[in-house]
Amino acid sequence: MIAVLKKDTSEKQLSGLIEWLKMMGLDVHISKGKYQTIVGLIGDTSRVDIELLQSLEIVDTVKRISEPFKSVNRKFHPDDTIVDVSGVKIGGGNFVAIAGPCSVESPEQISEVAASVKASGASLLRGGAFKPRTSPYDFQGLKAEGIEMLREAKKATGLPIVSEIISINYLPLFEDVDLIQVGARNMQNFELLRELGRIKKPILLKRGLANTLKELLMSAEYIMAGGNEQIILCERGIRTFETYTRNTLDLSAVPMLHELTHLPVIIDPSHATGKASLVRPMALAATAAGADGLMIEVHNNPQKALCDGPQSLTPEQFADVMKSVCAIRAVVAG
Amino acid sequence: MIAVLKKDTSEKQLSGLIEWLKMMGLDVHISKGKYQTIVGLIGDTSRVDIELLQSLEIVDTVKRISEPFKSVNRKFHPDDTIVDVSGVKIGGGNFVAIAGPCSVESPEQISEVAASVKASGASLLRGGAFKPRTSPYDFQGLKAEGIEMLREAKKATGLPIVSEIISINYLPLFEDVDLIQVGARNMQNFELLRELGRIKKPILLKRGLANTLKELLMSAEYIMAGGNEQIILCERGIRTFETYTRNTLDLSAVPMLHELTHLPVIIDPSHATGKASLVRPMALAATAAGADGLMIEVHNNPQKALCDGPQSLTPEQFADVMKSVCAIRAVVAG
Amino acid sequence: MIAVLKKDTSEKQLSGLIEWLKMMGLDVHISKGKYQTIVGLIGDTSRVDIELLQSLEIVDTVKRISEPFKSVNRKFHPDDTIVDVSGVKIGGGNFVAIAGPCSVESPEQISEVAASVKASGASLLRGGAFKPRTSPYDFQGLKAEGIEMLREAKKATGLPIVSEIISINYLPLFEDVDLIQVGARNMQNFELLRELGRIKKPILLKRGLANTLKELLMSAEYIMAGGNEQIILCERGIRTFETYTRNTLDLSAVPMLHELTHLPVIIDPSHATGKASLVRPMALAATAAGADGLMIEVHNNPQKALCDGPQSLTPEQFADVMKSVCAIRAVVAG
Amino acid sequence: MIAVLKKDTSEKQLSGLIEWLKMMGLDVHISKGKYQTIVGLIGDTSRVDIELLQSLEIVDTVKRISEPFKSVNRKFHPDDTIVDVSGVKIGGGNFVAIAGPCSVESPEQISEVAASVKASGASLLRGGAFKPRTSPYDFQGLKAEGIEMLREAKKATGLPIVSEIISINYLPLFEDVDLIQVGARNMQNFELLRELGRIKKPILLKRGLANTLKELLMSAEYIMAGGNEQIILCERGIRTFETYTRNTLDLSAVPMLHELTHLPVIIDPSHATGKASLVRPMALAATAAGADGLMIEVHNNPQKALCDGPQSLTPEQFADVMKSVCAIRAVVAG
Repeated sequence: MIAVLKKDTSEKQLSGLIEWLKMMGLDVHISKGKYQTIVGLIGDTSRVDIELLQSLEIVDTVKRISEPFKSVNRKFHPDDTIVDVSGVKIGGGNFVAIAGPCSVESPEQISEVAASVKASGASLLRGGAFKPRTSPYDFQGLKAEGIEMLREAKKATGLPIVSEIISINYLPLFEDVDLIQVGARNMQNFELLRELGRIKKPILLKRGLANTLKELLMSAEYIMAGGNEQIILCERGIRTFETYTRNTLDLSAVPMLHELTHLPVIIDPSHATGKASLVRPMALAATAAGADGLMIEVHNNPQKALCDGPQSLTPEQFADVMKSVCAIRAVVAG
Repeated sequence: MIAVLKKDTSEKQLSGLIEWLKMMGLDVHISKGKYQTIVGLIGDTSRVDIELLQSLEIVDTVKRISEPFKSVNRKFHPDDTIVDVSGVKIGGGNFVAIAGPCSVESPEQISEVAASVKASGASLLRGGAFKPRTSPYDFQGLKAEGIEMLREAKKATGLPIVSEIISINYLPLFEDVDLIQVGARNMQNFELLRELGRIKKPILLKRGLANTLKELLMSAEYIMAGGNEQIILCERGIRTFETYTRNTLDLSAVPMLHELTHLPVIIDPSHATGKASLVRPMALAATAAGADGLMIEVHNNPQKALCDGPQSLTPEQFADVMKSVCAIRAVVAG
Repeated sequence: MIAVLKKDTSEKQLSGLIEWLKMMGLDVHISKGKYQTIVGLIGDTSRVDIELLQSLEIVDTVKRISEPFKSVNRKFHPDDTIVDVSGVKIGGGNFVAIAGPCSVESPEQISEVAASVKASGASLLRGGAFKPRTSPYDFQGLKAEGIEMLREAKKATGLPIVSEIISINYLPLFEDVDLIQVGARNMQNFELLRELGRIKKPILLKRGLANTLKELLMSAEYIMAGGNEQIILCERGIRTFETYTRNTLDLSAVPMLHELTHLPVIIDPSHATGKASLVRPMALAATAAGADGLMIEVHNNPQKALCDGPQSLTPEQFADVMKSVCAIRAVVAG
Repeated sequence: MIAVLKKDTSEKQLSGLIEWLKMMGLDVHISKGKYQTIVGLIGDTSRVDIELLQSLEIVDTVKRISEPFKSVNRKFHPDDTIVDVSGVKIGGGNFVAIAGPCSVESPEQISEVAASVKASGASLLRGGAFKPRTSPYDFQGLKAEGIEMLREAKKATGLPIVSEIISINYLPLFEDVDLIQVGARNMQNFELLRELGRIKKPILLKRGLANTLKELLMSAEYIMAGGNEQIILCERGIRTFETYTRNTLDLSAVPMLHELTHLPVIIDPSHATGKASLVRPMALAATAAGADGLMIEVHNNPQKALCDGPQSLTPEQFADVMKSVCAIRAVVAG
């Protein structure tokens, strides 16, 4: 971390600052230039509150050189984390396909989709029971009933299940959910993250629509700081000025996150693009970019889906995508 | 609402769609062109799930013509809403200055600041007790203890108090808080909004960092849909590519929101700019733009503030800003 | 195109508008609702000036339903355009690899790179002679001398050459350049586009850093409106809030543009990411997404490159990328 | 400037780097930490090519501490620049109102508008003769004929004139134009900027739609590097996710630029908002924020304007705005 001091800082103020920093266990190096003095802070700066430092009267600007995240940082944990979701491994060379409808709608729908995606090679079943919707008048999910239908589908197919939580108060309902998803709009719901750090279940953390990779990693850090190290990161499209696609899928997040962190990274091409016709090319591209998995919306009758229909694949389309995904995996992992 | 149908839609499919729309109480007008057929939906379309319509096989695109928000819409409620915060009126020509420290730090700090901002013309006292911070290692607020210190300052000065809630589970602690703030990162925490719609206290709803005005209004609609009509909207800067300022204050939101909604609109120049030197010009500009109030960070010792120090004004600077704000109010309201 | 009229539009005003629109050769359909009247314009609306229509007193808002671009629109030209660059075909199933240094630096550098990328499978040689740089103090390219060195490298290897033009006044120098590149910062330099529409050379048009696909297509429309139909579109990363990567590569632009236009689409992973370590995964991802080609920076001594060094591959790295690209092409095109 | 070196940098490589930097006239300070070595560059770093430094094998990242702009930097030129446009002074306490139609349409239109805005207090007349339009099918301006009409209006009213240049090849036509405008889309047309640096006329430089203040200042630096110091900066709205307004007016740019540079800063509320109803509040807000002037679109018959009609004021509305602007100036400048 670098602090640039104001021009008129006195020697006394400078030595006061140095003393304070040393008390926090940091080494300090000083470079005096004509227009400014630069203070280099060396040591574990992840616990330095950058805004507190910035608020000192003599400090002009503060810049981080090293990352503010620690537990999720690959520098301090070089080996890939392998997340285990009820026996399904993700990361460290283990690729996973998660599939299912945006929303659970009925026992028939979820069990039909579950059977078909399993046959095509999916190893986890997704389905939304609590849906965060922009309008209070839109369909909000079947809630507890939806979770129950997912449990039935899991019993029938053996596929572990993934579902989104929108408030820590619903946690008791998620006892049989194998992988708990934190949606994009809750990526910075720090209260929720903190509580999820205290449980023993793997978490699927989605990147917010306008959040940076650093912010995504800081949110994962919240969960790890509580003791839960089973985290999968998910890129699902960010907000840009483009309007033909619903969001812009940032695939460079895959190799970039692999450099920065040891956590597995998966891609959701369905929400990112909002268009069924773009799911196949983006699923293949994500696989070629080295993603540890895919999360794809599949619906047995996309025209009747209660939400997010336009981006769902039919079971046949999904089977077809999976074949090409496997062929690309062979090139990339080979 | 306009639905553009796919080229190959059959007559039978078209009449099926029309029937379905009429069942939902809508009038339908059809325009057939060479390349596409356009279906106009007329009536109360705020309850039409746009994604559901879009998911129909025969539909190419859907565009809203009228706004998806209803209770907050000025079209259906032309008069300004005047929010009453324990006797302090906001909106409909009533201008309010809210001031205080970013975080409550000690009984001395909050009572000193409270007395000074009251003397300069502030009518509400702000102070954070629960701080949503990007890093789990940063100061998170004094919590219940902070709320207690705010109560003491209120007792001493008579100023009603404003503080941020970050989880509905903390609601019991907010019994004596006069105006409950929903922060930018919780603007789309729909579970929280829904619960705040059920209480009888005024809500200060801040715009999210990358959210549109329509999304802000939809979030206000969540609160109003529950029956709570006492809402103040607050613009506090949005994320842009600019880095010299922390965020970009969108002042055109003031007159634009005044056209779209009857709710009062206030401006927070402190968080928006992140720089004390920009607070004064932006406070004056907000007043000139017609804002219904300002929320300004004031600290008796900004260099020692535990968070957000660089953007706080001293009590003297705040007094000075208030004088010019009053002069500008006279020009604008005149 | 849809025009929503103001509530208080009189019958006389409405019939005046209808008459005017019919004079422009358009069919008009009227839908009257309780709160607004909607006028549907049917026919060739690409020549309707949307801002002119919007400026009419009685018009509230105007929305385009069909695209404002025509010559580049796949709807009116369903077959893929195949661009021929001095014998090298691009588009319609023909994949191209363009490689070379960011800047031409010396005859040795460009001829060495040219020979090596040719051996690895590149069919076009790129090299910048005119460099648009943000700072007037940065290296601006070897200009005419750089073009001359490219010509020598072309003579030696037989590879057609690609270079960027930054002002129409330099056109005489580009006589032997086979493919003229318009850079991201000139994507909306309409004067330049118009002039390039009058020449008979293929154009490589890069998407601007903050431009939408529609704007990219409108810029291509400028060139086609002049009579030049040999255009290749290039996505090279857009500006987002992410800072770990220089820009965000929008790979969904590939299949999306393929739906919207008949022009070929290539990807530049070097400028998009700004990091050599991300070029390989993004090149593979672009190929998997169905791109018609890649443009990759290769330098024989990346550490000494005068500009954009950190994103260049060595010839060995490039050869390795090309092998995997071919394997992925086999899966995708198969 | 700070360069962070890679972990495995050898002593020999380090001393090679130090030698090279000293040859460029810089002082160097070294801080060695456990995980990285930091090299501080002290002296005139504005001429250091940051990408060249970054391309060195041993360098991990480079961060600028001081600004890359020099001639426009207030640090090296503390006094306000006062630009003189044929006798009209701007900056250093001199406030200017520039008004006129978006496009020059006819001798009657421009002379009528000129007379009326002069009467209301405008000191410069604007009018577009060359219009950069997104679509090749939209009205592109009256060109030479439009400039001629502006000259006539200048002769009749005595108001100096402002018009936009879109290619350096049109410079001969601008001999009688008093202030040459560079539009937002040409802010990074470096060829144009360089040429405008060689002439002796004042330049009005508009900020690009997605450009930062630093980039705006670097573009001004291009003009100043050529010897032309008469530059006025103009904020005219930036691209954000908001869609109710055409762009988002960044008013914090006014005080922020005043801290960074000695050049005057004016605001264009008409293009920024795209809505006539927002021009008045934003013009007042800009004045309150301390802008050195305003540029406002006025049309004698906004409903018939050939372009940008919806954002134009009538002469009466403009007169009314000017009255309030003066009252606010009195508060701010007082």
